[in-house]
Order: sequence, then C-alpha cells, then structure tokens
Amino acid sequence: MFLPMGVSVNTQGHLAVGGVDTLQLARQYGTPLYVMNEDVIRSMLREFKRSIDENYENGGMVAFASKACGFSQMFRIAAEEGCGVDVSSGGELYTALKAGFPAERIVMHGSCKTEEELELAVENGVGRIVVNDAYELRRLTRVAQRLGKTADIYLRVTPGIDAHTHSAVMTGQIDSKFGFTLENGDAMQAVKDALAEPVLSLKGLHCHVASQVFDEQPFRDAARVMLTFLRDIRTETGVTLGELDVGGGFGVPYTAADEAKPCTEYMKWTADAMHDYAATLDFPLPRILIEPGRAVVAHAGVTLYTVGGIKDIPNVRKYVCINGGMCDNPRYALYEADYTVCVADRAGEEPCERVTVAGRCCESGDLIQENTPLQPCDEGDTLAVLCTGAYNYSMSSHYNRYPKPPVVMVRDGETYVAVKGETYADLLSHDC
Amino acid sequence: MFLPMGVSVNTQGHLAVGGVDTLQLARQYGTPLYVMNEDVIRSMLREFKRSIDENYENGGMVAFASKACGFSQMFRIAAEEGCGVDVSSGGELYTALKAGFPAERIVMHGSCKTEEELELAVENGVGRIVVNDAYELRRLTRVAQRLGKTADIYLRVTPGIDAHTHSAVMTGQIDSKFGFTLENGDAMQAVKDALAEPVLSLKGLHCHVASQVFDEQPFRDAARVMLTFLRDIRTETGVTLGELDVGGGFGVPYTAADEAKPCTEYMKWTADAMHDYAATLDFPLPRILIEPGRAVVAHAGVTLYTVGGIKDIPNVRKYVCINGGMCDNPRYALYEADYTVCVADRAGEEPCERVTVAGRCCESGDLIQENTPLQPCDEGDTLAVLCTGAYNYSMSSHYNRYPKPPVVMVRDGETYVAVKGETYADLLSHDC
Repeated sequence: MFLPMGVSVNTQGHLAVGGVDTLQLARQYGTPLYVMNEDVIRSMLREFKRSIDENYENGGMVAFASKACGFSQMFRIAAEEGCGVDVSSGGELYTALKAGFPAERIVMHGSCKTEEELELAVENGVGRIVVNDAYELRRLTRVAQRLGKTADIYLRVTPGIDAHTHSAVMTGQIDSKFGFTLENGDAMQAVKDALAEPVLSLKGLHCHVASQVFDEQPFRDAARVMLTFLRDIRTETGVTLGELDVGGGFGVPYTAADEAKPCTEYMKWTADAMHDYAATLDFPLPRILIEPGRAVVAHAGVTLYTVGGIKDIPNVRKYVCINGGMCDNPRYALYEADYTVCVADRAGEEPCERVTVAGRCCESGDLIQENTPLQPCDEGDTLAVLCTGAYNYSMSSHYNRYPKPPVVMVRDGETYVAVKGETYADLLSHDC
Repeated sequence: MFLPMGVSVNTQGHLAVGGVDTLQLARQYGTPLYVMNEDVIRSMLREFKRSIDENYENGGMVAFASKACGFSQMFRIAAEEGCGVDVSSGGELYTALKAGFPAERIVMHGSCKTEEELELAVENGVGRIVVNDAYELRRLTRVAQRLGKTADIYLRVTPGIDAHTHSAVMTGQIDSKFGFTLENGDAMQAVKDALAEPVLSLKGLHCHVASQVFDEQPFRDAARVMLTFLRDIRTETGVTLGELDVGGGFGVPYTAADEAKPCTEYMKWTADAMHDYAATLDFPLPRILIEPGRAVVAHAGVTLYTVGGIKDIPNVRKYVCINGGMCDNPRYALYEADYTVCVADRAGEEPCERVTVAGRCCESGDLIQENTPLQPCDEGDTLAVLCTGAYNYSMSSHYNRYPKPPVVMVRDGETYVAVKGETYADLLSHDC
C-alpha cells in the first residue's frame, strides 16, 4: 500500500499519522475528521527552501500557495518557517494578515480582483501583487492613487505551454483565463503600461504552467519563455526586471501508480533551465519565487470516516458507504481524482478486494473512489483516505447541510485542533 | 433569450426578477448575489400540490427536496404552503425543525445516516424516515428501542430503471449506492425485517428514478416496478402498504434548447401510470408522495455578478471574467451544466457573440459557461446567470476563501435578505 510521508502502520496494525493511532484520533475527535501532520508540512517547506539554497545561487522565496489549504494555523506555520505565502483572494489575504503573517512576504494572486481586494492588499503593504489583466492594472492604479501608495507588482504572463495534465488544472496554455498573452503583444504592452505608471513598481513577472506536472519539460519551457520575455523587455524598454515567480504545479503522487519524485527535483529542474537559458540569452539570473501548494500539504493530510454500511450488488459493484463525501472532498466528483484508501483498523493487511467508496450526500456522483483496493471492512470501522491535505478542507462545502469537520493537527506525537468542527447551530448563523 | 418564470426585461432594457430591476439589486446588496423569487417558489409548490389534487384521487403530499436549496426561510415558505419537506441529513433536519417546520410533514432521507441523525429524527417525531439499507434499519431499530419510540418508516428501493441522464444524478439503476436492491431479494428481506420489528412501523416504499428526467417512460417504469413490488409484498406477507413516495427528478429547462414542460405533467404521467398498473395488478392505489426540489426552485433563482474584465484571445476564445465562480456555483465544473447567461444591463438586446464566462477562483476549470451567447459587455456590467435557484447556494463552498454571498428574496415587488452574506471575519470563526 502506498503510504505518504509520516503515515505508518503501528504495531497493532492500525494506521498512524505522525505516530498517532488514527483510531484514537477518530474516537477522540469523531469522524469525519481532517488530520494534518504539522511535521510533514514543516519538513516540506524546509525541503523547498533548501532546494532553492542548494540549486539557485541568486536566491529566492518559497511562497506557500494557501488556496491548497489556508486556515490561520497554516499561515502561522509558513511564517515560522520563514516562507512567503501566495494568497488568491481577499479572504485568504485577510486570514494571512489576521494570523500575523508578515505582509511583505505575501504574494497576492487572483484572476478577477475587486477594488476592495486590491485596496486591502495595498493598504496593508502586501509584498507583491500579481496583476492578471489590463483591467486589473487600471483598477490597481486607481486604488494606489487613491491611497497615495506605491504597489509592488508582478505581471502574470500566459507562457503558452501545453502541459499534459487534467484540463481543469491546466493554466499555462494560450487558451487560459489567466494572465497576459505573450503572442499578441498584450504582455509587452502591459509591461510598458506598468512601467509608465508612477504608483506601480514593476518588480518582475509571474507564470504558472499547470498543476500535477511530473515532467521536467514544461518547467524548462516556462523558464525559456519567461527569460526570453525578460530579455525582450530589456531590449524594448531598457529595464532589467530582477524577479521571476515561476508558480507551482509540481506533481504529487496520490497512489502507488503515480511516480514519486523528491520535491527538490522541481527547483533542480527549474534552476538548471534558468542557468541554461540565462547564459544563452545573456540575461542576469533573476531572484526566483516558487509557489508550491499541493506539494507542501497533500501528503500531510489524511481524512478519517466511519463506515456506515456495505452494499454488495453481486456481479455489479460493492459500495462501502461512509459518513462524509463530496461535501468534505469534492475532488473525485470534480476530476475523478485518484486516492489511496485504507481501513485504518486493518492497515497492516493487504487489500483483498476492489470496492467503490460512496459518500453520504444525496447524489449518485458523490463517490470518493471507484474500483479501489481495500482491506475487508464492516460498519463502524474507520476508513482513511490518504493524501487529502490539499484541496479538501479548502474546497469543502455545506452540500446537504453537513457541518464542516474539524481539522486536527499532529505535532511531535501530540494533537491539537487547528480548525474547530462546525455544529448544526453554526449552519443557521446567517439564516434570517 | 430563454427567460424563466418571473424573470423579465423592463422598460429600461434591464433584467428584472419579480419586477425588481437586477441592477438596483446589485447596487443595493452588492455582488455576487443570489436572488430568489419567493412568488415563483410559492407558485411552483402550489402547482405541484394542484397536480396531485387534480390527477390523483387518493391524495398525497408534495415534499420539497430541501437539498436543492435549504435555508430557514425556504422551510418557512414550504410550511406556509402546506407542503412537506424531504431532508437529506441531520443538518437539513435541524434547520427544518428550528424554522418551525411541522415534524410530521418531514421525510428524512440520507444514504448513510448516523445514529445521531436517526436519534434527532426519532426524538422529534419526524413523519417518515426513509431507510436506505440494512445497516440503517438495524441502527434505527437500536435508536428507537433506546428512545422507547416507534419510527414510521419507508424503505428506499432501487427500482433498477435506466433513465437517460447524467451519470452523476442517475439513481434508479441497479448499480446505485441508494436503496435496497429488488433483483436479489434484499428489498423483500428488508420489508420482512421491518414488519417484524415492533419499534418500526413500515408505512410504505420510496424510490427515485433520476434527476433531470424529461420523458414519461422512466416515471411509468417506476410506477410499474414499485406497484408490482407492493403487490408482491401483499402476496408474501399479507400486508398491504398504503403509501408510495416516488421521489423527484422532473426535468427543468435551463436554456432554450431544453424542452419545457409544465410541472403538472410529472404528476399527470405518474398518476396515469399508477392508475394503469394498480388496475392491472389489482392493487389499491396508495397515498402518494412526490419530492420536487430542482423543479420548485431552479427557475426562482438568478445569480448576479459584476464583470471584472474581458480577455479576448483572437482566434481562440473570449473570456468574460466575473467576481464569483465555482465557489458559489460549482455545477459547470461538476457536470458541465447548461445555463442561460445575460448581461443584466442590456438584457433587451440580442446576444451578439459567444463567450466563456470565467469564475474568479484560481483554477482553470472554474468556468460558469463555455461558448455561450451573450450581449456585449464591459467591466462593471452586471452579469446574470439564470435558473440558479437549485444546487447553487446549497452546493457553495469557501474555495479560495471567498465569503458566501447573501440570498435576497423578492416578494410582491419588495426584497428582503433571507441569508446574510458572510464577512471576512466569518471565515475565521472556527480557526484556532
């Protein structure tokens, strides 16, 4: 069975997270339960930082992409690790600021930022605002003028690279809602507009190839396209921009079928390409930003459910029904995302059959995994879905009015609540 | 342009809901904004009730499927209209009870009900608990015994009908997580088990064919299968069950391409089939329950957004970017669901181009509609997505930590807030 970092099988044959028995966690906190391993999160952030230090002499910053998992404690952890964060909305920015995250290490993303969001960013002196389009450039200019402040910005550029991944998470190709298009001159025009605007200080560029990329090539292509564009900017405007944010997208294995590569490879690939093309293009190496999100938190998360029943339809399918589903993890419904599933009570045993794990929402499409290997299980057993640290809590909904489960962190063999579970009463908090 | 009931274009050429100018709504309440037309909801509930009265002499109940849209005020409206409600979880049940909904008119659904949920239902004397599987039957028995109460129940049966609709919303075929299977005798065994259990009072059966069904045939098939099974139960056990809950699933048009049929057709089809097969099988007509959800609320809802910018990629695609997206309406991301989109400022004009409406979440798959006809628009315009009353608010998430928009109701040309919009501070309410 595929076991991510920090997940093990203890001497009783139970699944453990950071050494803590998941059955004990289920008893103590109830199910469904998001469990996250703080040690893994910190270790991944350190690995990514180290990968810059070791491979890229010009320095840079790891900005954790908080949309993958962005509650207050996540921001505190990233802050303590000396990382930056990438926020994608006013809500994420607000959370970061309230958690005491240093504003200068915040990178503000978002594809359709409102004036209110831009105001929040400028007022609080956010480190870099990544401008997505010409409308936003004008809105930000108005906001900065009104506030009498200068905004340090990047321009998001669509590098036009076709990475082989699910179309829902593919962002770098030319047909994208994100960023300024290179091919038609939009990007160059935006650079000139930004440089001409006194309240904007253009620090560099941003691009993002795609999500769940396992190959070196798209990252090499991105480095080539972006450095070429930086060189062209120097040629056309005389300005040498000194920062490049190459986004995230480094692939994370979810099952034994996915190829596992150390996260340090991402920066190694990128650094190699940057060195190559900087030399070829005779352009000075910029400071670099990387924005891992999934790669930091996916493996740190395990979701625990209780099995409510089995529905075995002979010659058709065997359903294992659990007390959670697309409300807490919509990724199978959205993308048919792969997960490794295991019966926490019998994690030491080999999976002996293939089942469909069905969520409890009143919707046929509420499945967590189809045709997946699983140990034998029965009502009352604890079912664990592994690698749920990314885009589970952050994508959770109230569909069927299920309260959101708590998030419990494991640290040094101890546990604490990072996000309180909702109550029924909470569901009514905004009803009139 | 396809205009659902209660939606019109006013003399200024603006889109209006229940006679109220949507631009005025956007100004007054901000965007994104869920607008719902109470008059339409009430009128639909009345139509469904009338369709039973006119077509089915043996009487029945309309139980609004609240998972389609289930905040407190919706329960009050259904209560005032003398309808029942179908709740699919403890959270929906709690909301119904707190809204003062009469417990005896509540039908409790859910595919993996916990003991806590069943306890809430039994303790409050919920009208009918629809038991989904054998595990639940045993759990409910334990709960009823513990509480010293009798639970009035239905058994959910999988009728094994293949309705032609999206697989995510197809529930009646044999390969389903829902209900007892007929073919292998599970359903008959469950009937016998329930009849043998003193704390359970088996009142009838439930089935649900699928969602978005536009044809008569699946409903006829369901009536045939279920009446045959009721007849078989009488033959095998001597018990004549007197109630049949045929679920919902009546198709709702979302665009001009969908065929529009009056909602009364659903009951007409069902009643015709019930009459036919009751006669053929020599079985007395049972009391009937229908559970429309989408058909009651879909057309009552319009979501208003503000256009943040246009990204026109020549020869590729034109994106219209809005300040909402899959966080408030995940149905395109989930099912590529069709919607009619219009520029509220210019609703009187003919759509002149085809665009992709892109949501603001940091995800390429966050689209609301692709290649959809639209009037010309620009930054600051109000974009309306029609027929969003069902499975929009109820499926909304906090993805990217966007606060949930408010729900504003229109009634008799006046407006009121039914669900308050969330603030940034609300996002932190459970963070530790």
